[in-house]
Amino acid sequence: MDQRKVIAIDGMGGDHAPGIVIDGLEAVCRRRSDLEFIVFGDEAEIRLLLDRSPAAAARSTIRHSDKRIAMDAKPSEALRRGKGSSMWGAIEAVRDGEAIAAVSAGNTGALMAISKLVLRTVEGLHRPALVGTWPTRRGVSAVLDLGADIAADARQLVEFAIMGEVFARAVHRKSAPTVALLNIGSEDLKGHDSIREAARLIRASGLGMAFEGYVEGNDIGMGKVDVVVTDGFTGNVALKTAEGVARMITELLKETLTSSLRARLGALIAMKALKGFRARLDPRLANGAVFLGLNGCVVKSHGSADGEGYAQAVYVAADMGGSGFKQDIEDKLRILAEVIARSAEPVSEEDAVS
Amino acid sequence: MDQRKVIAIDGMGGDHAPGIVIDGLEAVCRRRSDLEFIVFGDEAEIRLLLDRSPAAAARSTIRHSDKRIAMDAKPSEALRRGKGSSMWGAIEAVRDGEAIAAVSAGNTGALMAISKLVLRTVEGLHRPALVGTWPTRRGVSAVLDLGADIAADARQLVEFAIMGEVFARAVHRKSAPTVALLNIGSEDLKGHDSIREAARLIRASGLGMAFEGYVEGNDIGMGKVDVVVTDGFTGNVALKTAEGVARMITELLKETLTSSLRARLGALIAMKALKGFRARLDPRLANGAVFLGLNGCVVKSHGSADGEGYAQAVYVAADMGGSGFKQDIEDKLRILAEVIARSAEPVSEEDAVS
Repeated sequence: MDQRKVIAIDGMGGDHAPGIVIDGLEAVCRRRSDLEFIVFGDEAEIRLLLDRSPAAAARSTIRHSDKRIAMDAKPSEALRRGKGSSMWGAIEAVRDGEAIAAVSAGNTGALMAISKLVLRTVEGLHRPALVGTWPTRRGVSAVLDLGADIAADARQLVEFAIMGEVFARAVHRKSAPTVALLNIGSEDLKGHDSIREAARLIRASGLGMAFEGYVEGNDIGMGKVDVVVTDGFTGNVALKTAEGVARMITELLKETLTSSLRARLGALIAMKALKGFRARLDPRLANGAVFLGLNGCVVKSHGSADGEGYAQAVYVAADMGGSGFKQDIEDKLRILAEVIARSAEPVSEEDAVS
Repeated sequence: MDQRKVIAIDGMGGDHAPGIVIDGLEAVCRRRSDLEFIVFGDEAEIRLLLDRSPAAAARSTIRHSDKRIAMDAKPSEALRRGKGSSMWGAIEAVRDGEAIAAVSAGNTGALMAISKLVLRTVEGLHRPALVGTWPTRRGVSAVLDLGADIAADARQLVEFAIMGEVFARAVHRKSAPTVALLNIGSEDLKGHDSIREAARLIRASGLGMAFEGYVEGNDIGMGKVDVVVTDGFTGNVALKTAEGVARMITELLKETLTSSLRARLGALIAMKALKGFRARLDPRLANGAVFLGLNGCVVKSHGSADGEGYAQAVYVAADMGGSGFKQDIEDKLRILAEVIARSAEPVSEEDAVS
């Protein structure tokens, strides 16, 4: 694989593509000079946008495609008819070693289906997962699976833990990320068997993971651990619930600070601090989920991201795609496979208790 | 059953019992005069507190018990050794028709186990559920199961929907509450089979429910429907995740508004509006989850609630215990049972699609 950091871009994916895609690349290129892009999509349309985006233009090559995957296409349909589309092209560029990662703000289901078909799952892995960044009280944490699949057995949860650790190292630059399984409660309300079995496996595995047992939902926002592991149904519900609550509170605050003349005046005086507050909660900074566990890096940007949000997804692609994630995952999966093979004779019960 | 509104109180349950319990009753009695209390617990200790709480003292009877269930006792242990405790006594008062409801801020697992044993599940119901109030953009919604059990099959989800509707009518005073099942996504990411089957059952049931299909996590905080139905694992994760996010944001805001002299000044000027904001998000107002589906009403207050929070749990007990919830649930369960008996021949596929 080429050593330059080339990133393949699905120019036509997303609610406001290709406009915000090129805005995003322009923002990236104004800030750093180590990235180049192959932009897949309608050449005329993209050329027009690049003409107004000099920094991105200098480091982008266009690959024409007149096909795009609709935002509401079913994955099965995308697989059947998507070949030759801008999304498919970007993923092929990763497979062929032209790019270290692909970024798309397009249809999530289609992106996952095409990526799996074109890049294939890492050897020894059962299922890839969607891993993303969660803003917390102490900075950021990684949460997965955010919805690549709906369920996960014990072994898959351990695979997620391995992948989450790799993501936290590469993207969040944490050298020894702490990892925990999302579970419910104290007071003898026990979680699913799969979760307890996953805890047992991790403890027995010698994976060298900074494993902290279980966390509960409230621990995510407080940033108790660096990597939170759960199945795709629960992860998706938790993520969206958090988005809803954050939106509810920030809307309410905005309403509050414009509710009277006095409130407006107070807000004006505290403006600088309030801007810092808003920046800390900016959802754009958490944009860019990696579809992890394939023989290549694919990053999903939120479909309605703006240029600044898209730029964040590009940074994630550069960090993850530029890391040795595949080797890391394969090495740890081998260790896990040995442990599972050995543990026909089960480990003592105490080890499974958090 | 007696027509006065008598509520049985576990005087010794909770992190700060009996102090905050009596504070809560005092707050209630200053605001309304239709409630009376039987307070179970250490007579000397409670008497001392009532001496300083004249409104509550005038409407409380003490039933002495020198046993209390520890906050960290296992449910099995509580069942074996809990008889004669303040918690057990309060629940027995409901069974014996002395009180319309019991309130406890004690050990959740123990409370559910003892309640189930003493009050028994409503005829025809598979499992009771914990239903609580969720503050939303538009007011409040009911969410269940919050963790009475970890899983739920299709029929149990429908039972939860029935109970959530009853709660929203009695406690949130909504005459025709809208109901939805919590699920994940658009884009062909399908939820668990049990959820789709529950949707089919509700649509086929003729329960007369204002059923709106599926909602996603972000819809909860936005108040899209009045009743959100999910299994106990997912409900507990969603609730705690929301608590964590709300806490993270409010702490960050507090930090922001004290970060500089200007920020402090602005906050001071906007104080009145900010107080309104804080009141809207006050978690105490959402206190009081009903353990619903038994032959009697049991309300769980948060273990660390203060007097004001405890008072809210008492209001929930008065509303729910004073309603005809048991009859309502039994009537609808009969309809559901008929539908399930009939639907050996399954309903057409289209009906199941949201």
